[in-house]
This record gives sequence, C-alpha cells and structure tokens, in this order.
Amino acid sequence: MLRLPILTVLLFVSVFSNAQQHPVTFFTKSEAAEVKKKVGAFPVLTHSYNEIKKEVDGFVGKDVDVPFPKDPAGGYTHDKHKANYTLMFNGGILYNLTGDIKYAALVKNMLLKYAVLNPTLKNHPQATSASPGRIFWQALNDANWMVYAGMAYDLIYNSLNVADRKKIEEGAFKPEVDYFTKDLRGWFDRIHNHNVWASAGVGIIGIASNNREYIDIALKGSDKDGKTGFIAQMNQLFSPDGYYTEGPYYVRYAILPYMLFANALNNTNPSLKIFEHRNKILQKALMTCLQQTNTDGVFFPMNDAIKDKDYTTNEIVTAINIAWKVYGNDDGLLTIANKQNRVMLNKGGSSIAAALATKKSITAFYPYKTIESTDGVKGNEGGISVLRNGSGNTLTSLIFKYASQGMGHGHFDRLNINLFDKGNEILQDYGSARFIGIEQKYGGRYLPENAAYAAQTIAHNTIVVDETSHFNGNSELGEKSHAQKLFSAISNPSVLVVSAKENNAYQRIGLQRTVYMLQLPDEKKLVVDIYNATSSDEHQYDLPFQYNGQFINPSFKYTANTKKQETLGLKNGYQFIWKEAEATVADTTVQFTFLNSHIYYTVSSLVQDSAKIFFTRSGANDPNFNIRREPAYIIRKKGKDQAFISVIEIHGKYDPIYEFSTNAYPAVQEIKLLLNNSDFTVAEIIVAGKKIMIAQSNKDFEKTKKHSLNLTNEKIEWTGPYSLLYDGKGLK
Amino acid sequence: MLRLPILTVLLFVSVFSNAQQHPVTFFTKSEAAEVKKKVGAFPVLTHSYNEIKKEVDGFVGKDVDVPFPKDPAGGYTHDKHKANYTLMFNGGILYNLTGDIKYAALVKNMLLKYAVLNPTLKNHPQATSASPGRIFWQALNDANWMVYAGMAYDLIYNSLNVADRKKIEEGAFKPEVDYFTKDLRGWFDRIHNHNVWASAGVGIIGIASNNREYIDIALKGSDKDGKTGFIAQMNQLFSPDGYYTEGPYYVRYAILPYMLFANALNNTNPSLKIFEHRNKILQKALMTCLQQTNTDGVFFPMNDAIKDKDYTTNEIVTAINIAWKVYGNDDGLLTIANKQNRVMLNKGGSSIAAALATKKSITAFYPYKTIESTDGVKGNEGGISVLRNGSGNTLTSLIFKYASQGMGHGHFDRLNINLFDKGNEILQDYGSARFIGIEQKYGGRYLPENAAYAAQTIAHNTIVVDETSHFNGNSELGEKSHAQKLFSAISNPSVLVVSAKENNAYQRIGLQRTVYMLQLPDEKKLVVDIYNATSSDEHQYDLPFQYNGQFINPSFKYTANTKKQETLGLKNGYQFIWKEAEATVADTTVQFTFLNSHIYYTVSSLVQDSAKIFFTRSGANDPNFNIRREPAYIIRKKGKDQAFISVIEIHGKYDPIYEFSTNAYPAVQEIKLLLNNSDFTVAEIIVAGKKIMIAQSNKDFEKTKKHSLNLTNEKIEWTGPYSLLYDGKGLK
Repeated sequence: MLRLPILTVLLFVSVFSNAQQHPVTFFTKSEAAEVKKKVGAFPVLTHSYNEIKKEVDGFVGKDVDVPFPKDPAGGYTHDKHKANYTLMFNGGILYNLTGDIKYAALVKNMLLKYAVLNPTLKNHPQATSASPGRIFWQALNDANWMVYAGMAYDLIYNSLNVADRKKIEEGAFKPEVDYFTKDLRGWFDRIHNHNVWASAGVGIIGIASNNREYIDIALKGSDKDGKTGFIAQMNQLFSPDGYYTEGPYYVRYAILPYMLFANALNNTNPSLKIFEHRNKILQKALMTCLQQTNTDGVFFPMNDAIKDKDYTTNEIVTAINIAWKVYGNDDGLLTIANKQNRVMLNKGGSSIAAALATKKSITAFYPYKTIESTDGVKGNEGGISVLRNGSGNTLTSLIFKYASQGMGHGHFDRLNINLFDKGNEILQDYGSARFIGIEQKYGGRYLPENAAYAAQTIAHNTIVVDETSHFNGNSELGEKSHAQKLFSAISNPSVLVVSAKENNAYQRIGLQRTVYMLQLPDEKKLVVDIYNATSSDEHQYDLPFQYNGQFINPSFKYTANTKKQETLGLKNGYQFIWKEAEATVADTTVQFTFLNSHIYYTVSSLVQDSAKIFFTRSGANDPNFNIRREPAYIIRKKGKDQAFISVIEIHGKYDPIYEFSTNAYPAVQEIKLLLNNSDFTVAEIIVAGKKIMIAQSNKDFEKTKKHSLNLTNEKIEWTGPYSLLYDGKGLK
Repeated sequence: MLRLPILTVLLFVSVFSNAQQHPVTFFTKSEAAEVKKKVGAFPVLTHSYNEIKKEVDGFVGKDVDVPFPKDPAGGYTHDKHKANYTLMFNGGILYNLTGDIKYAALVKNMLLKYAVLNPTLKNHPQATSASPGRIFWQALNDANWMVYAGMAYDLIYNSLNVADRKKIEEGAFKPEVDYFTKDLRGWFDRIHNHNVWASAGVGIIGIASNNREYIDIALKGSDKDGKTGFIAQMNQLFSPDGYYTEGPYYVRYAILPYMLFANALNNTNPSLKIFEHRNKILQKALMTCLQQTNTDGVFFPMNDAIKDKDYTTNEIVTAINIAWKVYGNDDGLLTIANKQNRVMLNKGGSSIAAALATKKSITAFYPYKTIESTDGVKGNEGGISVLRNGSGNTLTSLIFKYASQGMGHGHFDRLNINLFDKGNEILQDYGSARFIGIEQKYGGRYLPENAAYAAQTIAHNTIVVDETSHFNGNSELGEKSHAQKLFSAISNPSVLVVSAKENNAYQRIGLQRTVYMLQLPDEKKLVVDIYNATSSDEHQYDLPFQYNGQFINPSFKYTANTKKQETLGLKNGYQFIWKEAEATVADTTVQFTFLNSHIYYTVSSLVQDSAKIFFTRSGANDPNFNIRREPAYIIRKKGKDQAFISVIEIHGKYDPIYEFSTNAYPAVQEIKLLLNNSDFTVAEIIVAGKKIMIAQSNKDFEKTKKHSLNLTNEKIEWTGPYSLLYDGKGLK
C-alpha cells in the first residue's frame, strides 16, 4: 500500500514561493475581482451572495461568542464553534468582495479570541475517541476548523498588522498544528479520510501563514518523507478509477478538503499540477461518487453511511465549483448545481451560475450509467458494479459490492446487493446507526448498535453462515483480503451481468454470486441472482432480503408469531431481529410480493430439498430505540453446498387515485436448476409461459472459450462465461 | 333525521321536460360546442383532451371485452368493467367534441354488449356484503357503472336508432335499475354515501333515457315520497355548514355523484335550482371538505380513511369543474386545479384551463384557515374544529373531533385530536386498514383489522377507559348520541381554544377536553391539552399519543422489553399492540421528544401521584401483515377523577446537511395544576423560565361571566370561559 509513484517524488522538489500573495487559499485577488463584477448578474450567484451577506451582517459589530469547549456534538459549544468557522470564512470572502473593513474586523476579532483560547486548551472534556479534539470533542472537527479558519485568515491577511498576525499565527493556529503533528502524530499520519482533513488544515494554515514547514508536513507527513500526508492520501485512498475504499458517503466528506487544499496548492504553485496528479484522480473521485447516488442525489448507503446525505451538501457544492474551474464545463455537474441552487463565491461558482442562467435546458437527472469501479490502490482488490436500466425517474440501479473491507467504516457485506428502483431503495442497506448532530443520541456519535447491528452481515443482502458475520465481524481480518470479480458484461443494456467470489469471509467456505439484470420484452424487468455457497462441511446459510415496503403476500403457508415475539438469534446482529413469522418449505419455487411506492416487487426463489423462511423486523435488544424497525425476508438452508437462485421482479403498478392495480401478480412462475457444480450452473426460469435459460461457467471465464453440456433433455452450447436465452433467443 | 325542509317539497312539483334534448347529463350541446372551440387554446385543456383521446383511440375499431363478472376488486373482470365505463364515458365525450361517428360506434357496441350481458346476471360470485353487485362484487360499483354508462348513453343518444336505444335501455339499464330499486330496495333507500351513487345512477339513466319514473325514484326514493332519495340525501348527510357526517374521505367520494347528478338535473330543469338547495349545501360541502385536507391535499384520515387520497382525485376534479361553472371563480379552487393538472372537458373545465393559462400567479397552497364545522342535520350534534397557525408549508393544523359517530365508517374516537405540522402528520389517526384495489389483500375490501384495530379507541389520541373502546365498540350505540362543544374562541390567531365533552362513550364517566393552540413570542408553538376524566368509580385511563417519528429521548427511566415482546392487552385493539417498553413515574412532568422530518416535537405531561407509561408498536396478532407498524406513547392512570394535562411542543430543527440541531430540547420545563374541579381548572406551564397561566371554567361558558378564584398564592380573576396569560400578559 505504501509504495509511492514516481510522480509524487517529483512533486516534492517543487519550490513554494516565499513572498506569498494574499488571498490565495480560497481564491486569488484576480478571481475575487472577477466574482465581484458578476455578483449581480446571475441569479444563483446573487442569491448565494445575499445568503452569506445576510448571515454575516447579523454578526457585524457584535461580540461573537467563542466559548470554552464543553459540549459534545449537537451541544451549544460544539455548534457555536462550528458556526464560528463558517462565519469567519464567509466574513473573509465578503471582505474581499466588498472591500469593507468591517468584515475583516469581524474575522480578526474572532481569530484573536481563538488566539487567546486555543493555547489554554487541553483535551476536550467530552472526548471519547482515540483522537480527541480540543475545540471539539474529536480531532476531526478541529481539522474542519483549521481548514476554514486557515482560509479566513488568508482572506483577511492583508488587513492585519504584523502584531495581530503574530498573535493569530502563534495563538490560534500553532497550538492546533502542534497538537495535531506532535501529540496526535500517529493519528495525523494515518491514511484515512479524517486525516485528509488534518493534512488540508495544516497545509492551508501553512499557505495562509507562509509557513513552509507546515506545508511540507501537510504534503508529506510529519516525517516529511512522503510516506503519509496529502499526496500519499491521494495515492492510496482511491483506486485508479477513483473509487474511494470507504465508500461514496465518505468520499463525499473527504472530497472537500481534497479539493480545497488542492485548489490552494494550485493557486500557490501551479507547476505542481496537483489536479493532474495520478491521471486526474480528484476528477475521477468526484465523478465516481456522483455515479454512486440514487436519482434523488442520496449517496448509496454502503458501509457506515447516513441516508440523509445527498449531492446538495456543502462538500459537493465546493467540489463541483472547484472541478468546474479546473476540469471544465460538464452538463452533469450543471444538473447537480441546479439542484444545489447555490454556488461558492469563487470563479467556478460564478461560472456555474452564469451557465445556469444562460443554458436553455438543464437535464432533470444526472446522466447515470452502468459503472464498474475497481477497489484498491492498484485496482486489484475487487470492486463495485452499479448495473443500470432505464432513465430519469424510471431508473433501476443494482449495486453489487465485491470490494475490500473499506477500512474502519466498512461493513461485513461481501457480495452484497442493493436495489434502487424509481427513486426508492427496494432492497436496502441499513446504512449506519447514528444520528449525527443530535446530542441526545449519544452525542451524535456512532451508536453502539452501529457495530453491533448495522455493520453485521445479517443487516445486509448477502449470505450469513452459521449466524456469524463475515470475518467473524473482525475488521482487521477483513482488511487482509478482498472479494474478486470473475467476469462481467455490461455492453448490452438488456443483459447486464457481473460475477464475483469471496473465499475468505468464512474458513473453508466458498461464496460465488452472479447477478443478471434483464430487460425482457413487454417492459418486464428482472434481476436473476445465482448465489452458490460451497463447503465440504455442514453449515447453516441465511440469505436475507431487506425489503422496503408493504408486505403483500407470499406464495406459501407460514406461522406468524402473533402473541409473543422473540429474537432470531443471540449474537452477531441476530439479537436485534424480531422473528415475526416463519415457514418450512420444500421442493418448490417460493414467492413473496411486496409493494413500495405503488410498484409491486416479487422475490421468487428456488427451494430444492427444504428451507426455512423467516419474516423479521429489526428493533429487538434496542433499549434506546436507536435502530429503525425494518422488515426482512430471510431464506435459511442447511447442508454442505447450497445454491440460492432467486429472481427479483419489478412488476405492475398500484394506482391509489383510480384504485386500480395492474400486473399485481409476478410473471415468474417457476425456477429450475438443471445443473449446478463447480464448473457450471444451468438454470431455467419460466416467465409468463416463456423460458429464460441461463448457462454460466463457474471456473473458466475466457470470452472465447466454447462450452458444451449434455443435459437430460437437451444439449447446450455457448461461448464465453455465460449464455442467456429468452424464448430461445438472445435479448436485445 | 327524516323531517324534510319545505324547500324540498317544492322541488317535487317541478315538471321535467318530456321531449328531452341530448346530450344533457354531462354537458349540453352548446356547452360541448364551446369546449370544442377552446380545446387547442389552453394547455391544461389540450392536455386533458389529448389524454382522453389517446386512451379512447387505443380501443376504436377494436372488440372491447365485456367479460362475465367473476373477480373481486383488483381482479381482471372488476378492473375491466371499471375501465369500460370510463372508456364509454370518454368515448361519448369525444363523439360530441369531434363529431366522429367512430366514437359513438365504440360506445354503442359496448353498451349493446352490456345489453346482452346484464339480463343474464345474478348476484356476483364474489359478493360478500349485504348489498351484492351484479357486474361487480358490491352494488356500489354497479352504481358507479350506472352513473358513467348513463352519461355515455346520453352522449351518443343522437347517433342511435330507435331499435338500439330500446335494446340498451331494456337490456343494459333496466335490469340494473330494477335490481337496485326492487331487489335492493332497502339498500337503495338508505341515506348513505353509497346510495347517493345509487340515486345518481338511476337518475342519470332516467334523464338519459327520458324515463320520468326513474328520475322520480332517484329524487324521492323508491316510494317516491321524498323520505329517501337524492334530495333527502342532500338534506340529511350534511350539517348546515356542509360537514359530511362520515368525514372528508367519504365526502370526497360522494361529492362526485352529488355534483354530476345535480349538474344533469340543472341542465334539464334549471327551475329546480338544485345548486341553490339548502343554502347551496353542495358548495358548502365542497369547501368544507377541502379545508379538511393537509397542505399536500391529503384528506384528514378520520374514520375509515385511506391516506393515499388527496384532492387530485377524479372526484374532486369533477366537483371543482362543476362548482366553478355553477358557483363562479375561486382562487382556492384554482390552486387545486393547478395541482390536479387536468380538467373535465366541460364548461367549468375549459374555464378553469383558461384561468390557469392567463392568471399571473397561482397560490402554491390552498387558503387554509381555522374552521369549525357542526355535525348533524340541524348542526346540533357536536362537530369538528380545525385550529390552524402559520401558512404555506409551515402550517400547523390541530384537528379536534367532537362529532357524532359518522355512521358505519365512524371510529370510536370521541374527543380525538390529530396534529399536522409542516405537511406531516405528527399525531396520527391510523385511518383504515384496507388496501383498496389490491386483490391479494382480501380482495381490496376492508380488512378484518379495520374493525378490530383501526376503528378502536386505542388506535386514536383520546382516552380509553378500562381497555374498552367508546360505546364498547358498538356503532349503533355510538350513533345514539354525540359529543358536545362547550365553547371555542378562534378570533385571536395566537390563542385558539376549543372545549368539548363526551358523557356517553362510557357509562357514568365524564370526558372533557380543552385544547389551546398557542403562538408564543420567539416562534414557539405549543398545544396545551387539558383532558379531564371524571367518575365516582375507580377506572384505568389510557391516553395514547400516536406519534409519527423517530424516538429521540424521554425524560424518565424506563424498562425496555428487549428480548421478548408481548401484547399490551387482549381485546378492543390492545391485542394488536406490542409493548416495547414501560415505565412507572410519580409526581413529575414527564417529557418525550421525537423527530419527524427534521423537526423536534416534545409531549410534556403532568403526572400527579403516579402513572405508567408505555412505548408501543402496532403489529401484534396480525398474521397477514395487514397493519402498519406504528409507534405510540401511552400514559396510563388509575383512580376516580383523573386529569391529563399535556403540552405538545413544536421546536427546533435538525439540519442533516449541515449536521446542526437547533433547539433540540423542549422549552417547556414544568406543568403544574393549581386547581382542578368540576367548576374550574387552573394550570401553570413554565416555558423557558416564563409562565403560561391558564384558568378555565368547566361548567359556565358565558362570555360575559366574571370569575374570581383564591388560590394559595394569588387571586385570579377573569371574564368568560377561559383566561390565558403568558408572562403576565395576553398573547397577541
């Protein structure tokens, strides 16, 4: 992981200018002049400017509170310091755009208060993490403060006398930088999204205060050897095509310091070509994470993700505004900017505002496409595929995750799938158990139920063996290996296929899953899910479908626990699940239909021999009501090798206004498994009287390889890793 | 109930023209000519026309299936016949607007098929109700068919030869009319929303086929004595100010046949002045039900209501389009028409389309206001108050229901409250347990859980005594009496007050509830709820708050049932409720905060002596997963007289984008009851250090009456039914 590309080494020999102009971090003097000229010209720019001005004007001439740190996230002192750094940053911008010294004075007075406060601070009284903060409960928030306070200082630098500069640099900034780079040195040098903020904070303060030492540490780590620091973070947290190993929710958070510090670096030393670094990795990171959103802009909730976050957050506004300036115009970004309905008051922001004002038609939806991303620095640690069908508000997205652990925020979800349809999450990922910014809920921190439930395998849509999570719920173990893609084919939009395997989640158990997203004639959409578990020992295999919606009906008889409810199990997340109903089924195709936002969905699954089925709901063992009450449909099989062949069908419509249902019943009638061994799987699915025949190779994925099989009634021949015929023909 | 006003008697002597022009039911020839001229002129009209044309053109020249009735609601034959009557109606309209005989031919062929089918029909095989249908499972749907098929016939009447007219009148219509007015005579003569449809069906067929007998029966009932029939339905189903006793969800449904039949009557005999009848009761009914919607247009879910229904339904489109023509332009109706985005192809519809095209600004929200409606034909059977504060998307609406039973669809919810805020339902009414139009769910009919759970008192926000519903869950008993308003004051928007009592729901127990909706300075909104139960015997009193949202935190310790769950009780709806947690509290103010759509809500309640508290969730004893899993917060007290004094506070905001909470904690600190007896209640509420003092009279509600009380520390004097002081002063 730590080998640096040669390009990086070259960066370090570049020389930063000593006699720095100001401002230079957020924008340059000439950029500010350009924005100033256009402020009244484009509605979104005007409106963004007015919003900021209104907020800042409310504080001008007032004595702004800089309280002694006391409260956890959500509490007064936390929120006040957070509001303060935004206020200082915005005040600094207004000083440059209006020339009015009152704004500089506001910022100066606040920075001087911090210059008095910060040297007195010890670890925050509410600190609970290994990286405590001083102004805030955790160091991460102090890093946020440094990024914005650093820019604010740079923005008013020209207005300050030498004495005040000294007070601020030594009082407000030095204690924080020292704390980070000395006391918290081990943390500062981590390769992690928190530390991207830390590097950016130290680096921006370095640029603002002309401190070469700070800049070097920021770029190359506290040892200045380049093994850690900002450049290493650019090299090691993304795969070559921009997938961020912690997932889209986290790159949303990290993209801001990446972009802001890169922007400041680019303004001070363009010869670094930081935005070109690693084949424009920052652009790739942005574009990849935008593709990993739902049609409403919400980031796919894999790993520790909160489902509230969408691409209208401040971080993405900032990232888009800088990317627009650096990488040029982009219609997709404009669609997002239109929904954000605000811009930064910099060159990119003003240019976007101009485009929004003048462009005739702005697309309603981001141009989503089927996208496959590798994981790992070298792109060889599995990855993630997002299979897509349809467009606009009828888009269907199937997420198939066969990536690495995703660091500390990773969940135990190897080979997990997650389905979105028509803007709704249909097969859900719980996301994380956390109420960020709500003090009453554990100070806004990750709740105990996050690790105990949300991260566990049973909270996902993938196989759990013996009621134990992947890697026995041990992240460090999970980080040692990754899943592996076997093949994929995404060029035919009617047949999108990805196959992957995971052999390390459990000892001596192989997991191999192949998903087919199919567009049949007559607007039928199906996902065929062939999931094989293989072992030479007896095991219990649970495959949950975390369906989102109203239970309509199953095709089988079951027993409901109507008077008393107990939990599905005792540990590894099972203790959080109430068992609402259960069934025993044998030698059949079981079907379960649910309704989400007036659309019917049916999961049809083959049961050979016998299986148990559970209808469950989360919420047990949750004394503080921290987790949502969500239903799941779980298929349980026992044995050595077990195949789970399911079809997820999107069908029909319920019109509550006209009280009509159309196609309320599934078209899938039967699933048959004609052959299933370590070499091949052949399955037949009867859909409205017609046959889908899938033959796939489980070992040899050569595109040109010819396969031939003699089944009981027929001979099958095909070339390549799979063959899919509908009614005897290929799908187009 | 059955006494007819003199006006009605006068109506009956009017003479209908024998030589009827056609068309005349949906629109007249001249109205059609006018619409035809404008079809291309106004976007909404054009679009509505194109929609209909597209649908009908798909069937022109084809053999439309008129299947033998077989399936329940949601099944093929049900949905086909439903689609057929709409198709015939639209085909008839197009024939008149285009003059193209192909449309008339389409309708004629279908009507002739019905003329063959209908004489062969017996009761529908899926019929389960006391009023079975023939084409459909219930007679109500046959009545729908009659209304539209009747208009369709009238619309193509001029194109038919005498022989075909005879076939249709005798084959398609006569069996249905005879079935209704002879076989189902008892049902036909009921005063009920279903029978408004039946009257309108028979009456419209009468007008379409120039059958005076049918018209008379429709207007005056099968005995033609006026004791039942359409006029009696206009007289007896509404209170004088237009409140419909079954609630807004049902008037939404009934308003269509009311308006369509009245329109046809008005076209054939304007001297009837049907739209003026009973002081324009149809206009009042429409306006009252529109006020009983949430800001998103969804009808308040009192009684058996499905929460999907809003004012964009077909029924309200029809009602508004006719009301606009008859009663004139109205900005509020235009706001709704704008959201409906379609119009009927009649004079009102075309006029609305013109207004939509030309009016510069159309208000985004219907002009909601505080409104009090009486219930009962004479307006003396209690009523319902909707207290409102704020406007647009910050509107708060408190519904206080102290009405009569509301017939068979009524719930046992005397003195129930229901809170909406910022577009969301905060203290909810379950509505009805039914999936209309979903065959898998009991054929779309009311589910058994509707009567067993949704209608029971415990599913509401009002007191349940001894785990038994009001009137012991007996509708007939409930219909014998009604709650009673004691006083109200709604002229000061900062202090809205309503008080009501219910002395019949339980034997020898008095229930009296007074709600105050307050706007304090600093944007604080509170609802103070003073609810007294009085009895000379010992009882158990449960007051549930059906809160909608995420549990944040309570102020008291409780025990959660984390490993096993049992039901709260065994009957009267209690068997459907899981007991998630419970607490015992004494001599305190208990507080419980929850979060809904990023707004905090806290219920603060005084506990004198001791109380039990339950956190519950519906879903027990529900083997078919028919009811939603919804939480409640229940306060239980035991004793003779018991007072429940609560404050529902709307406070703060959670911003997930910026991760900030503001005012996440309640401002209410303490509730004190200084005096509570049969004459007076005096309560003190401490809000952020300031005092709200409420003194109310419980017996004497004279506005000019002076009251004087000597309390321990002070003397209180006021005039009228109540006094409310905040920080020593009145609220303005």
